[in-house]
Amino acid sequence: MKSNLSKRAAFAAIALGLLAYTNTQAQETPKPPKMVPEMTEFWEPAVRVVTPAANNAAPSDAIVLFDGKDLSQWKAKDGSGEAKWQVKNNVFTVGKGDISTNKEFEDFQLHIEWSAPDEVKGESQGRGNSGIFLQDRYEVQVLDNYNNRTYSNGQAGSIYKQHRPLVNAMRQPSEWNVYDIIYTAPRFKEDGSMFTPARVTVLHNGVLVQNNTEVKGPTEYIGLPEYKAHGKAPISLQDHGNPVQYRNVWIREL
Amino acid sequence: MKSNLSKRAAFAAIALGLLAYTNTQAQETPKPPKMVPEMTEFWEPAVRVVTPAANNAAPSDAIVLFDGKDLSQWKAKDGSGEAKWQVKNNVFTVGKGDISTNKEFEDFQLHIEWSAPDEVKGESQGRGNSGIFLQDRYEVQVLDNYNNRTYSNGQAGSIYKQHRPLVNAMRQPSEWNVYDIIYTAPRFKEDGSMFTPARVTVLHNGVLVQNNTEVKGPTEYIGLPEYKAHGKAPISLQDHGNPVQYRNVWIREL
Amino acid sequence: MKSNLSKRAAFAAIALGLLAYTNTQAQETPKPPKMVPEMTEFWEPAVRVVTPAANNAAPSDAIVLFDGKDLSQWKAKDGSGEAKWQVKNNVFTVGKGDISTNKEFEDFQLHIEWSAPDEVKGESQGRGNSGIFLQDRYEVQVLDNYNNRTYSNGQAGSIYKQHRPLVNAMRQPSEWNVYDIIYTAPRFKEDGSMFTPARVTVLHNGVLVQNNTEVKGPTEYIGLPEYKAHGKAPISLQDHGNPVQYRNVWIREL
Amino acid sequence: MKSNLSKRAAFAAIALGLLAYTNTQAQETPKPPKMVPEMTEFWEPAVRVVTPAANNAAPSDAIVLFDGKDLSQWKAKDGSGEAKWQVKNNVFTVGKGDISTNKEFEDFQLHIEWSAPDEVKGESQGRGNSGIFLQDRYEVQVLDNYNNRTYSNGQAGSIYKQHRPLVNAMRQPSEWNVYDIIYTAPRFKEDGSMFTPARVTVLHNGVLVQNNTEVKGPTEYIGLPEYKAHGKAPISLQDHGNPVQYRNVWIREL
Repeated sequence: MKSNLSKRAAFAAIALGLLAYTNTQAQETPKPPKMVPEMTEFWEPAVRVVTPAANNAAPSDAIVLFDGKDLSQWKAKDGSGEAKWQVKNNVFTVGKGDISTNKEFEDFQLHIEWSAPDEVKGESQGRGNSGIFLQDRYEVQVLDNYNNRTYSNGQAGSIYKQHRPLVNAMRQPSEWNVYDIIYTAPRFKEDGSMFTPARVTVLHNGVLVQNNTEVKGPTEYIGLPEYKAHGKAPISLQDHGNPVQYRNVWIREL
Repeated sequence: MKSNLSKRAAFAAIALGLLAYTNTQAQETPKPPKMVPEMTEFWEPAVRVVTPAANNAAPSDAIVLFDGKDLSQWKAKDGSGEAKWQVKNNVFTVGKGDISTNKEFEDFQLHIEWSAPDEVKGESQGRGNSGIFLQDRYEVQVLDNYNNRTYSNGQAGSIYKQHRPLVNAMRQPSEWNVYDIIYTAPRFKEDGSMFTPARVTVLHNGVLVQNNTEVKGPTEYIGLPEYKAHGKAPISLQDHGNPVQYRNVWIREL
Repeated sequence: MKSNLSKRAAFAAIALGLLAYTNTQAQETPKPPKMVPEMTEFWEPAVRVVTPAANNAAPSDAIVLFDGKDLSQWKAKDGSGEAKWQVKNNVFTVGKGDISTNKEFEDFQLHIEWSAPDEVKGESQGRGNSGIFLQDRYEVQVLDNYNNRTYSNGQAGSIYKQHRPLVNAMRQPSEWNVYDIIYTAPRFKEDGSMFTPARVTVLHNGVLVQNNTEVKGPTEYIGLPEYKAHGKAPISLQDHGNPVQYRNVWIREL
Repeated sequence: MKSNLSKRAAFAAIALGLLAYTNTQAQETPKPPKMVPEMTEFWEPAVRVVTPAANNAAPSDAIVLFDGKDLSQWKAKDGSGEAKWQVKNNVFTVGKGDISTNKEFEDFQLHIEWSAPDEVKGESQGRGNSGIFLQDRYEVQVLDNYNNRTYSNGQAGSIYKQHRPLVNAMRQPSEWNVYDIIYTAPRFKEDGSMFTPARVTVLHNGVLVQNNTEVKGPTEYIGLPEYKAHGKAPISLQDHGNPVQYRNVWIREL
């Protein structure tokens, strides 16, 4: 018995020793030397200073697309000349024909305020309908969705007919809505095929409704979207026959 | 000559005919039948209604993390009990020890306002330093960077020691800064390895400073970040020894 | 004159001095200290060893889904019991009803070889049609596309009705085709909405035909795909009425 | 009683009726009309035909970078002229100085076979070390890791000093290893900043070791990688002082 016990004890000791040895081996791989804090502190390039403004006004590096006075930054989309929508009291109202910015853009942050017509008329897509076409192709829907049901992927804050908004954050018709839109343009390969799709983040009255959403292609009223290669392009606003109002429009190139 | 000409004409005709035939063939692949507009209109599921507020106040579906009165939504991060930072005039000020929310979060939109100490003291990282730790791990830097140079990836609006902000949109010390943060939590595989990294969008005073930026891992003061699997986790605020002030904090789960 | 010259020279000197001083200032931001090579050398965790095989045979960590002998790793997809497709000469041939693996998978690398029926019959989708349903939902098309035109997004190597293959790398009917498929499963949020889409890379006979392609949702013969939350799921093979042959099927969980 | 019962019955009926009506209303949102299969069948553009080869030989659309005979597709990387590494028995062996392809590439699929030196000598990074520099900057490590431990992110199949391989799929020194590499080049913005990082998928002897891995920047032996804008660039092979052998090299532009 005694010797048996010793044997077992000996084997146990050997087993423990081997285990300890194995652990030692496993622990013996080199550890990276400790870094110092400054090794992950990068001073260059310096960060550009921008002066923010109060009350949603344009920060210092923004291009003001509407300053309340005139539509000199815009033109008729159909090439017929000036943008002829009416400007009054720091506001412009949808008139005949779509309008586009003179300047063309790639990636940007866009601030735009809009108000549904004061007179509530029509329903579903017929009530206070307009739209903001990013790069002239990808529509963020503008619609009076206050107590007005329509198809979910056609609501205010939707990527029209592609992605419904996360929530409906509409204000009522007499009040102003704010869109803050962060847009990353699509990129294309040399052969014209899509390399990366457009992406859009939208805050509607400060509430997130699109979170870096992948755009499926140019907005289509009928059928499925399909990317076609393009370069920089303007922002366009849609005339859908309703007197939607806009104000305080600025854009920052990213 | 004449016959030669005829021959050439004949060959030309044949060539043209073949070309036309080829084109015909090429054009003969079926075209998808035209869809009708309603085929891309989806009414269900309906979009949830959220009532937005004015002046950066919490929308109807937000969890208010600080309403101006008390820190009942917070606790000491070290487990020692209540959050003991001072509350006064609808503002709370960094005190002893980090604090964390009682509630834990995954993906969210966070609104938080902060003001550098009124007395401008120290420089670089020593001036008005605090921080917002998303899921207790990933820091959006809070720092008085108004006329105060520091390393670019340690500025206000940086993902600390990982990504410098796109621009420096600081207000001066006596004024309030606003962060609107959209956060997508990292996901992990069953074996604990990282599946998708955390992503952060930050607007600083309405100006984009992080655009769906990919977080490299938990914030490290020394060395390189490395993901470790985790679940829902609180928001934490850092005590860096400076009396930074906070107010109007709310969060929306995404 | 002389004094004028001196003045100008003095101003020039001052200007140059200021410029030099400015440059000096600009260059005076701290530079991160130099690291040593070992700081970016990580020994742990160790990398697991896998023994590769020759001639497309299963590596040591693969689950063999068909070893040439029987379909014991498969069952009838409709729940009626055993997979009853015929096995002969190390090959199994599409029979009555779809079949599915017993085991369920999330992310994986799948190797599968297939041969169009020796007798060339039918055209377009009618010739040698079958399909590999990843997680029982997302189809990589199997079709005899050798000198057989069909719609581009329905070809062999397509994500059926969603993404055409980059090229058509078909072998002729008497020869075996090889698919090497790398699949990342979609992930879903707690509310059932899609968090990340499925992604698929496909090599067809060693030629890339899908490159981390984003799957739009479950394969639909009619209409538009739409994600619905699910967990692990089997690989299924489609009975489309054509005696397509399969062999050498193995899978590695990722 | 009777009349009471009737009243209650009447109210119950009304309640049920209202409930039914409400349900009807809820269900009354329009449903998209059913599509027909052809609406998601796209015949154009047609898919280009590529003839695959057997035994890892180049498919019909590949550029053969080494056909067993000479290094005419390569040059010395340092600009000193021809690639002078030795060619013998359909194999070329690492000689003095790195070599680069004459042609420059953006996105591609690269097939390359390599063999560690027959004489096993040295350990860790000193045994059979070479490397494949994608776009001259991003290294897929080549190393004899058969029974040779080194740091995990420096192993064969690693993105050197950035990402360890998923597994170690090495063959022993007398045998040939195969890399199939799918590479997506980084894209840059006009200001030179990174827009999308490089991405790499690597199969090592048919086993996945990198799955669309995001490259952190150019390979650095010392310190942290940082992207700098560049255009098309060659494939380079590294002379690390060990006689690593290469054969059967071809590339397909994507």
